[in-house]
Amino acid sequence: MKTAIVAGGLGFLGSHFANALLGRDDIGKLVIVDNLWTGSRDNEAYLEDPRVKIVHSDIERFLTDMMFDEIYHLASPASPSWYSADPTRTISANIIGAFRLRELLKPGGRFCYTSTSEVYGDPLVSPQPESYRGSVDCTGPRSSYDESKRCTEAFLFECQRVHGMDVRVARLFNVYGPRTRADDGRAVSNFISDALNGSPITIYGEGLQSRSWGYVEDILGGLTRLFWGDDLGQVGPVNIGNDREIPVIDIARYVASLVPGTSIRHVAPAPQDPSNRRPDLTLARRLFPDWACKIDYEQGVKLTLEWFARRQANLSARLAEPAGA
Amino acid sequence: MKTAIVAGGLGFLGSHFANALLGRDDIGKLVIVDNLWTGSRDNEAYLEDPRVKIVHSDIERFLTDMMFDEIYHLASPASPSWYSADPTRTISANIIGAFRLRELLKPGGRFCYTSTSEVYGDPLVSPQPESYRGSVDCTGPRSSYDESKRCTEAFLFECQRVHGMDVRVARLFNVYGPRTRADDGRAVSNFISDALNGSPITIYGEGLQSRSWGYVEDILGGLTRLFWGDDLGQVGPVNIGNDREIPVIDIARYVASLVPGTSIRHVAPAPQDPSNRRPDLTLARRLFPDWACKIDYEQGVKLTLEWFARRQANLSARLAEPAGA
Repeated sequence: MKTAIVAGGLGFLGSHFANALLGRDDIGKLVIVDNLWTGSRDNEAYLEDPRVKIVHSDIERFLTDMMFDEIYHLASPASPSWYSADPTRTISANIIGAFRLRELLKPGGRFCYTSTSEVYGDPLVSPQPESYRGSVDCTGPRSSYDESKRCTEAFLFECQRVHGMDVRVARLFNVYGPRTRADDGRAVSNFISDALNGSPITIYGEGLQSRSWGYVEDILGGLTRLFWGDDLGQVGPVNIGNDREIPVIDIARYVASLVPGTSIRHVAPAPQDPSNRRPDLTLARRLFPDWACKIDYEQGVKLTLEWFARRQANLSARLAEPAGA
Repeated sequence: MKTAIVAGGLGFLGSHFANALLGRDDIGKLVIVDNLWTGSRDNEAYLEDPRVKIVHSDIERFLTDMMFDEIYHLASPASPSWYSADPTRTISANIIGAFRLRELLKPGGRFCYTSTSEVYGDPLVSPQPESYRGSVDCTGPRSSYDESKRCTEAFLFECQRVHGMDVRVARLFNVYGPRTRADDGRAVSNFISDALNGSPITIYGEGLQSRSWGYVEDILGGLTRLFWGDDLGQVGPVNIGNDREIPVIDIARYVASLVPGTSIRHVAPAPQDPSNRRPDLTLARRLFPDWACKIDYEQGVKLTLEWFARRQANLSARLAEPAGA
């Protein structure tokens, strides 16, 4: 039986990934470490399993005597509004978190890390292959996230080169879906929250900046194949995403169409908002021929909106209950 | 009177810079922290001054009750042969070192950092202005240095943006000169060491890769103006270097010409060795109109070779003295 740790396991993606891990019967113990910065106690409900131990702690300061066969480092905010508000903490979670986690890896164990398409910055080539070196302003307002992800990749691949560590790094492209915080701050969840609250949807700039929106279930399919595959050989970072590229404004219009009466307003563009982002999936398709994103944004956004609406209804129902009922 | 700390102050550049600081009569206390990884005890002889306190410690783990008006973070190996051999320690020195040093900064104090032209990677534009986002492989064998420098820049400029910290960042281009370790591993000192030892000079590849070689005295002139200037306003990173770009092979031939009988041999290229590197000095010249590099490579290499020869002669003399003499 294997021991595993998921840092950031009460986050949006972290909790989905932890569920996937619990689906494996060779996992004997799963430790979830989360400081509840962008993670949520609500996600603990999905993780009720005798094999699970949940610890509320910064990963950098996580104390334990355990060692792990499999380490999953997902401890980082992923939304610009969160990471740009506390850049020091963002850098610390990624790179110092990785340093701490490496100390907990059993000899011969595997270290898996969720990196990001943000390592490509505002890309000058499209789609972006893993070999593209990126266009990141290392002094800019997104740099705490982009550069700490890049530096953590560097750390891990240097551990691979120098120490032969088994390293898996996924570069994720705009994942969305159920369990996103209402105040997450990224496009899909913002649009849905606004629409459900009867507020206008806010678009930064014209909304022509495009993204490759990956529904969480599809992304998990790629992620688990990369992280769990035993015969991949030594492999560099792998793009995991949906390569159908859609402008932000199209998502907004689609959400508005699902919630009649929703309006769209435009405000000034966000600083250094990348103009485009699309994964070159050649490597992922070669490694995982049986994997493909199957849920298009129309379906994925609808599923996410339904989940948000249910959460909101449950919340309203709980608030409406008389105290002590 | 001001308190200052130089992390990496027993290194090549660090010790020169500490000497420059000691030339200021408003410095009341200067703490030098160096773990003697690439720094050298030999450089302590240059720093005999009642205001100086030398501590042998990793900067990440440096314990003190003092706080500082001026922080100078030069704690990092700078030679590929050193940093690529211990990438974890390199990343730690830069980024975790910066985290620790920030804790020691007095409110309103200034944090100065020596970054590098390596943030540009193998550049696709020449010369490189500060706005160039670089071409760095964040998974490659130079990435521990390149990416930890980039990430530390990100950390500092985020501290400037979010907390108003007074930040100065110099991007240095191939500094050389006296006090370089004989085993430093970079071109000028390698060529000189080989020539003085009667060994052939080793060139990786054809030697057509070019660099902008900055003699330490010239570079210090730019560095002190950037770090000490009080009326620069909020300023991003600044290139400091000599913008005369010279192929490696020319330096080798020049050294060979100074030490008759020296031969040159070619070996396989180093992985991801940048093909070119040259600073765009527009910003530096606007900020410091009275600064320019005055020592050309012919003069600087000769001065360095003479210093290496004197060091070697002194060493030989000491070894030749009978014990107890």
